Amino acid sequence: MTASAPRSDAPVAVICGGGVLPAEVLEAAQAAGRKVFAIAIKGEASEALDRFRPVSLGWGQIGKLFDTMKKAGCRDVVLIGGVSRRPDFRSVAGDLGTLRRLPRIVAALKGGDDSLLVKVIGIFEDEGFRVIGAHEIAPSLLAGSGVIAGAQPDGDALRDMRLARQAVEALGRLDIGQAAVALGGRVIAVEGAEGTDAMLGRCAELRRNGRVNAKGRAGVLVKRAKPGQDLRADLPAIGPNTVEAAAAAGLAGIALEAGCVFIAEREATLAAARGKGLFLHGFEGEIDGG
Amino acid sequence: MTASAPRSDAPVAVICGGGVLPAEVLEAAQAAGRKVFAIAIKGEASEALDRFRPVSLGWGQIGKLFDTMKKAGCRDVVLIGGVSRRPDFRSVAGDLGTLRRLPRIVAALKGGDDSLLVKVIGIFEDEGFRVIGAHEIAPSLLAGSGVIAGAQPDGDALRDMRLARQAVEALGRLDIGQAAVALGGRVIAVEGAEGTDAMLGRCAELRRNGRVNAKGRAGVLVKRAKPGQDLRADLPAIGPNTVEAAAAAGLAGIALEAGCVFIAEREATLAAARGKGLFLHGFEGEIDGG
Repeated sequence: MTASAPRSDAPVAVICGGGVLPAEVLEAAQAAGRKVFAIAIKGEASEALDRFRPVSLGWGQIGKLFDTMKKAGCRDVVLIGGVSRRPDFRSVAGDLGTLRRLPRIVAALKGGDDSLLVKVIGIFEDEGFRVIGAHEIAPSLLAGSGVIAGAQPDGDALRDMRLARQAVEALGRLDIGQAAVALGGRVIAVEGAEGTDAMLGRCAELRRNGRVNAKGRAGVLVKRAKPGQDLRADLPAIGPNTVEAAAAAGLAGIALEAGCVFIAEREATLAAARGKGLFLHGFEGEIDGG
Repeated sequence: MTASAPRSDAPVAVICGGGVLPAEVLEAAQAAGRKVFAIAIKGEASEALDRFRPVSLGWGQIGKLFDTMKKAGCRDVVLIGGVSRRPDFRSVAGDLGTLRRLPRIVAALKGGDDSLLVKVIGIFEDEGFRVIGAHEIAPSLLAGSGVIAGAQPDGDALRDMRLARQAVEALGRLDIGQAAVALGGRVIAVEGAEGTDAMLGRCAELRRNGRVNAKGRAGVLVKRAKPGQDLRADLPAIGPNTVEAAAAAGLAGIALEAGCVFIAEREATLAAARGKGLFLHGFEGEIDGG
């Protein structure tokens, strides 16, 4: 048996960064009858993974990573969870497997987030692994279509959804961000490297300082995959924090691309939306009405 | 003589919002031999205008504004300077001329900044005025082409300039913002309603918290007009604050669209760039090299 020949009961290797999603993905995959082999990235992965008995590896242990996955009989690999900062491999004393791959990894670190992760996938594939999306082993975490929580969006909200969606699409084509906020028929904030929660904090500030005027809950956060984005590399996600930050910005709701955005801590996220009076809505293709 | 028939020595009406630019435009226009008639927007215009003996008018005095300009024999009108918040005409006790035009003004306040100001221009034109750009009466304030201050941008800077310029172009088509920052071959921040200085503050924060890694001065702020933007309505501008904020974000330099961006307080702005070791560069059309 070679490393790349999957056994029928071969576990999927789940390489886990930070946040709550890795544990949720592991759990949803197990619930769907899939065997999992958890690998925790040192300094990033949460303790909530402990019950999956993960192997813990640092950035300098790329050689050991591949050996471990091969020994465990894994062929399929999932990458999930956040990495709080771009790792600086030049400051890490790596194992031989890391050093051998270093030129390619360093090259991958130049360019947008998307190209970085797509290059990482290429490195795994060169080793004989098949990188699959977290949504393929845990589809129950994905946003669906239509009303997810709260009310149906009204005409103003649909108009703002369309505008923000258009902005995210334009930016996504340039590998920039996955989210934007429109309010009152105008895009007021666009996500760059700061992330969605920080962008929402900015929207709250814009309303506080009067640069954006609106009465009551108004405006929509749209989060979607970049056009042509490889969902194996970077699946957009929201959670209770996103809802809290959107509520603090006074938004009317959040619109997610159906089938392309994870909802972390689903019960808590939906409860937060209902509690704050925000809608959560899934859209596919064009947004009609408004 | 009708109000719309210009006398050969007719003054140009310069309607002044906040900031230092209105006084600079008035001075540059006078230096170029043009007669000016300054109108200060109450609560926005700076005291630096006093030496131009402005007429001071509030948001509720649109009727008086038009009467005053006609009596002064103005046909050409320039709009210049910032408005710190979207005026809420509904809360202003207006004169009859304001009330008559209110439905149109309120309609103008919906939609992006660009469409707002373009509609304002339409209101002036309906009254028989000709709205011209501040750059037409004060071209000496515009960014030129090539090196404006500091060194020639290197290959990395040219690559980042190209990327940020592309992002601003995509956003500008959607009437969103006029500026973006790229660093290390990646667009890290895009301007929405928060303005350029706030966006630069965000870039400084991204570097402080390690979400963006770079050694030494790196990255470029690009500021340009939106494609098809009516420069009479909203001319992009930078000043010493922009340079200070770019320096605080650790950027290598600032690139401006030649002939389409004002440099306020030119001496201070160029001196700040030289002092901080940033380049100021003007580009036309495509950015080559890098």
